[in-house]
Amino acid sequence: MEHLEQQERQRVWEKIQKALLNEQIDQFRAEFLELHPYDQARIFEEQEEDIRFLIYTYLSPNEMADVIEHVDRDLVNEFIIEMVPAFAAKILEEMSTDDAVDILNELDKNKVASFLTIMDKEESEEIKELLHYEEKTAGSIMTTEFVVIHHQMTVKEAMRHLRKEAPDAETIYYIYVVDSDKKLVGVISLRDLIIAEGDWLIQEVMSERVVSVPVGEDQEEIAQMMRDYDFLALPVVDFQNHLLGIITVDDIMDVMEEEASDDYSKLAGISEVERFGDTAIQSAKKRLPWLIVLLFLGMFTASIIGRFEEALDKVALLAVFIPVIAGMAGNTGTQALAVAVRSISTGDMNKIGKATVIWQEAKTGIITGTVCGILITGIVGFWYGDLYLGILVGISIMATLFVATIAGAFVPIVMDRFNIDPAVASGPFITTLNDIISMLIYFGLATVFMDLLIGG
Amino acid sequence: MEHLEQQERQRVWEKIQKALLNEQIDQFRAEFLELHPYDQARIFEEQEEDIRFLIYTYLSPNEMADVIEHVDRDLVNEFIIEMVPAFAAKILEEMSTDDAVDILNELDKNKVASFLTIMDKEESEEIKELLHYEEKTAGSIMTTEFVVIHHQMTVKEAMRHLRKEAPDAETIYYIYVVDSDKKLVGVISLRDLIIAEGDWLIQEVMSERVVSVPVGEDQEEIAQMMRDYDFLALPVVDFQNHLLGIITVDDIMDVMEEEASDDYSKLAGISEVERFGDTAIQSAKKRLPWLIVLLFLGMFTASIIGRFEEALDKVALLAVFIPVIAGMAGNTGTQALAVAVRSISTGDMNKIGKATVIWQEAKTGIITGTVCGILITGIVGFWYGDLYLGILVGISIMATLFVATIAGAFVPIVMDRFNIDPAVASGPFITTLNDIISMLIYFGLATVFMDLLIGG
Repeated sequence: MEHLEQQERQRVWEKIQKALLNEQIDQFRAEFLELHPYDQARIFEEQEEDIRFLIYTYLSPNEMADVIEHVDRDLVNEFIIEMVPAFAAKILEEMSTDDAVDILNELDKNKVASFLTIMDKEESEEIKELLHYEEKTAGSIMTTEFVVIHHQMTVKEAMRHLRKEAPDAETIYYIYVVDSDKKLVGVISLRDLIIAEGDWLIQEVMSERVVSVPVGEDQEEIAQMMRDYDFLALPVVDFQNHLLGIITVDDIMDVMEEEASDDYSKLAGISEVERFGDTAIQSAKKRLPWLIVLLFLGMFTASIIGRFEEALDKVALLAVFIPVIAGMAGNTGTQALAVAVRSISTGDMNKIGKATVIWQEAKTGIITGTVCGILITGIVGFWYGDLYLGILVGISIMATLFVATIAGAFVPIVMDRFNIDPAVASGPFITTLNDIISMLIYFGLATVFMDLLIGG
Repeated sequence: MEHLEQQERQRVWEKIQKALLNEQIDQFRAEFLELHPYDQARIFEEQEEDIRFLIYTYLSPNEMADVIEHVDRDLVNEFIIEMVPAFAAKILEEMSTDDAVDILNELDKNKVASFLTIMDKEESEEIKELLHYEEKTAGSIMTTEFVVIHHQMTVKEAMRHLRKEAPDAETIYYIYVVDSDKKLVGVISLRDLIIAEGDWLIQEVMSERVVSVPVGEDQEEIAQMMRDYDFLALPVVDFQNHLLGIITVDDIMDVMEEEASDDYSKLAGISEVERFGDTAIQSAKKRLPWLIVLLFLGMFTASIIGRFEEALDKVALLAVFIPVIAGMAGNTGTQALAVAVRSISTGDMNKIGKATVIWQEAKTGIITGTVCGILITGIVGFWYGDLYLGILVGISIMATLFVATIAGAFVPIVMDRFNIDPAVASGPFITTLNDIISMLIYFGLATVFMDLLIGG
């Protein structure tokens, strides 16, 4: 994705490239440091190894940290490992603690230990603490670089403190207030702070109703909360309400993107999100587990049809409608599934109630089933001139759509009840389940009405 | 979703409810106004009509505007219409312009015209302008309440201006700088402003490399950009670089949620996102168009199998494997589709290149096809004691998985090429397309090798 205008970007890129090739450090720095770190990272990623080593000598660890924070997470380890360890450690020191932790989490244990040894003591302690938190919880996405003020400071003192801390803090737009036990007691926005009188006490102007999250909270819940309350940052506390860190909105946008990709991939039956740069073998490995499970489920469907071989021997035409009936069952099931999974994850499900959702889906299934059933009865009856066959296929579609729609909503609701992520009930799984249901209905009806079919 | 702790919320809710039933305005206001508007909206939504009318008299238009901004968008029109028009107009005046426009966009034209007539002239002009922008563009999600400063102001003057404007502005954390022609020339964060010396000129401390978006830009692009650059706000400009409005991160989080729901629903074959509160008939209406198209495509599959009736008559067993072959084609196609759609929408597709993606999918298809093909040859050969049948089914699965995987990636890429939203190529569509391909492969092979099958 190109965000600077294409042409402008091209021009700047060429200037920078030229400066690098001619080893003109001043020209390079002048152009490169003017760019947003996102663009710096795009340029840096495109360089060959020898040019990258040049850049490591041209930039300070602090400047390089900005670049590394914006480099694609799948490439960053390679860069960190190729650097002189002392330089890499300095960069990790300069980065936001939460980003440094993200990177270290992907490295092998020995490397992490050696970086932590070289690093500044204070910073490495902070990182070590964050490394303990479970992935996808508040603890793992929070940062410990935030501004905190005491409730008995005056507004003037707070502003002075803020000016001093601003350059290192992740955000200064929400300032959290603690008491002498370091417990969170309030919050004040910079907006309110700059319009308050200088000699007022913070505890008089702060808001006491501060919303916080426990350190073990799931990141998806936090994203939902930030979106609902329009927060720019959220404080993270332990069970005694001590302030541990803050989560900022830019990290939450990454979480939202990640969770959306995750739900989307699961609906399509991919166990793990595929990444930019995966090889074909890696992609195949991620897809095969599901495909093999579905293959065995498919063989089960085959064995069910096998039981009706007698009926098939008598009326071979029956086979012709297998894909359309199984397919419609799969389609309607996937629709119902998607609606249910989405309304569980947005919380709408709790507002409406599970029984209501299933009842609603049952009614929807009756409507879609009746419409499609009547349509296909007409088409088959007319096309093959066999009204009985038409009615058989029509009733099968109707019954199938009804059952498959309910199944699509029921499966994720049951999973959610047992605390399994409902998104695991992917489209292909529901589709294969509904294949089985639909074949039982179709061939069951065909067997019962066999006399009419042969007579017709 | 309950964000205040359940118990605490219950307690506060009961207090508020009691105050309302006893018509104790002071108690109600004391408790209610302490809450975050998100929670106020949740409580308000649950009230009966007579209690709502009481609330309209207890709160000022300004206070009510906060509530209405957080009410579920599907319910808000009902509330706006039931109010005394003058009160509703006052509320719309007090709301963020972008939220007011969102609400008016859903009302009928006559209502909108009458509200705009009652409203304060200046505010109604602003709303009228925004009403013209196309949905899902920068213009439709931007707000016109922002702080703008002149490049020749001093830092001190700018701070004074800011303090005055802060209460009405949507955000004050990024302040945009214009020249005498009202053209956007720079930006300064409040963070930088408060650490700058008071008598410096803004043009000396501002950043000139301000990233802006044209007013017609697609909202999904803007979300991507905000996430990449970690912005809290983005300025919107016309073609002459005049500053028209700003987009804030809280609106972008809503856009991200909306776009994710949209992609997700399309993958499942639902044309329009279903909403909380849809009746069964409304749900059925949204799902039926796709189902009917798929029904006709399914009949096409049926007619293809019909051409092989002769083969089916000879070997009825062939029918048994129809669902597993068609199913596997659908599953693998949906996986490839999801990966392709996702990498188009995140921009990764451009980085890797389209040809590379298809080549990658082809290789993946060969691997998954070979693994599944060998597996099923073994199972069928062993189970039915018919090696030729096993090989036929195995080769069909292999060929099908190869072709279906490519088709899954190819269709969205082609659509994107022709500027059709690739997410329209939903899972059910690809599944049905792959049903047809797989049946052609399976019965084609069966016909060619019929002699072996009958012999075996």
